[in-house]
Amino acid sequence: MNILVTGGAGFIGSHLVDLLLDNGHKVTCADNLYLGRMKNIRHRLKDKNFKFYKLDVLDFKKLNEVFRKGGFDAVFHLVANSQIKQKKVDTKLDLRLNFLSTHNVLEAMRLNHVKAIVFASSSAIFGETDNRLITEDTGPLRPISFYGASKLASEAYISAFAHNFRLQAWLIRFPNVVGGRATHGILYDLLHKLKRNDRAVTVLGNGRQDKPYLHVKELVEAMVFVWQKAKGSYNYFNLGPDSTIKISKIIVILMKELGLKGRTRIKYAGGERGWTGDVPRYRYSLKKIRKLGWKARLSSEQAVRLSVRELKEEYGF
Amino acid sequence: MNILVTGGAGFIGSHLVDLLLDNGHKVTCADNLYLGRMKNIRHRLKDKNFKFYKLDVLDFKKLNEVFRKGGFDAVFHLVANSQIKQKKVDTKLDLRLNFLSTHNVLEAMRLNHVKAIVFASSSAIFGETDNRLITEDTGPLRPISFYGASKLASEAYISAFAHNFRLQAWLIRFPNVVGGRATHGILYDLLHKLKRNDRAVTVLGNGRQDKPYLHVKELVEAMVFVWQKAKGSYNYFNLGPDSTIKISKIIVILMKELGLKGRTRIKYAGGERGWTGDVPRYRYSLKKIRKLGWKARLSSEQAVRLSVRELKEEYGF
Repeated sequence: MNILVTGGAGFIGSHLVDLLLDNGHKVTCADNLYLGRMKNIRHRLKDKNFKFYKLDVLDFKKLNEVFRKGGFDAVFHLVANSQIKQKKVDTKLDLRLNFLSTHNVLEAMRLNHVKAIVFASSSAIFGETDNRLITEDTGPLRPISFYGASKLASEAYISAFAHNFRLQAWLIRFPNVVGGRATHGILYDLLHKLKRNDRAVTVLGNGRQDKPYLHVKELVEAMVFVWQKAKGSYNYFNLGPDSTIKISKIIVILMKELGLKGRTRIKYAGGERGWTGDVPRYRYSLKKIRKLGWKARLSSEQAVRLSVRELKEEYGF
Repeated sequence: MNILVTGGAGFIGSHLVDLLLDNGHKVTCADNLYLGRMKNIRHRLKDKNFKFYKLDVLDFKKLNEVFRKGGFDAVFHLVANSQIKQKKVDTKLDLRLNFLSTHNVLEAMRLNHVKAIVFASSSAIFGETDNRLITEDTGPLRPISFYGASKLASEAYISAFAHNFRLQAWLIRFPNVVGGRATHGILYDLLHKLKRNDRAVTVLGNGRQDKPYLHVKELVEAMVFVWQKAKGSYNYFNLGPDSTIKISKIIVILMKELGLKGRTRIKYAGGERGWTGDVPRYRYSLKKIRKLGWKARLSSEQAVRLSVRELKEEYGF
């Protein structure tokens, strides 16, 4: 198949590009290199099945031109500002990077008769669900972060486009994702803080946040699996491991893997959330994807441990 | 209270302005007169508690200026492209008029410390629910019109703003709304068609679409009621009468009230939907709003009959 991956030089996108190329697909990657990096795809640049465009999908004219020339069978749309935590208030950042980018991709698909979209959605669309198991059909949807709001807005538009223009859609609601090439997230943040100072480190929140973590390689395998197996016109799945892991346990793993046990003083900043808009805990029901035939091999704990090792290798420690 | 009504010269907005002024509130109306009309608010222009700005809320600079000068206690945000049915494909129309307008209002509220928003949401956020009773917490949300998608995107952002900036929000999901000053909808459309030619008329769909209809005066009373009674930080309600009415029955009422019984040949265009994106039937569970103390006085049939009389009076027949 001839596939466009938007955000294909990013953390998750580049792993997806690897997998799709390994599976024999022709892959075009569009990435503005805002969060994406050339080093994530450099090893693929000579592959005759791979094409890279440095492109901002918010530039509709250029995006449409790539579609016009591309003749794609399907689009994996991963472009997003994956930084849920914002340093300063900009309520329009995710709106542009996550939602208007999605509208542009859908519009280019419509004009160029591309009929299949796989979309990187998120548990953040649900907001605070406490200890309820989140099924695919759980309501109400009350995102508390602008990231979650922009992903829900994107889902809403994919739904309307799918109905109006007979697109086939696969929406996959990611859990927390970890692994090599990460550009953000707790493991990335703490590793870099500890590289600067391993005597003491401050962890956001009170350590009791408790969520599922999936390794990026399992995530991209699952995306391709769902895309190939789910045959409905509108397919939407929660994705993750059965288990969750607490922040305090992640810290224990991190200390052990980095050889800092007993050396680093851990300070919790306190508060139920890591930051405003942080959902402190959630649990997915995975019946639907289990029934389709997919199950995570690694637990949240195993995924975290493997990821710490990969990041340590990648960035040095 | 000092209240801003966006879209206050429109069909629903102008009835709301009347009610709020009658209740003794100070009301500022912002409307670009795209669908709104001066004749809807002219009778209020000399009221010292009323102020009108011809303003497009998509113009953030001007909107922010109105907020800066206004010192509002609350915003009733009704600006929208209320034409769910689109004549030609423009997937960005509702995105701009319904969603980006909402983002602008929220952003102006944030910058000017206005903490209360009442939002005109819609049953269209739910999409196709067949004969299931729709509660406020029904999922999944799969809008099939761009109107519904833009309203869901708006709800998503109101949710995120509410959490991040401690706004209090009242989201009210309107059913079909009918009554005087309407600028669209089946009664308005057919009345105008029949004024041009009362020998024959074509009705979209197969006549079996079956939905709840609420009279606009009851709607605005309910909005104000919900705003005053619901005390949560985030309040969301389905709104409507218990009953639904089929299109074929609406046609019978219309013929009778216009004195055309036996004269006009009715042709149904056919198809389960009136147009692409039309939800053919839905039913609301009204337990939540009933518990708050509100109940529609008119059935769907009574609301339609009254509205035909009002429109006949307004436009002549």
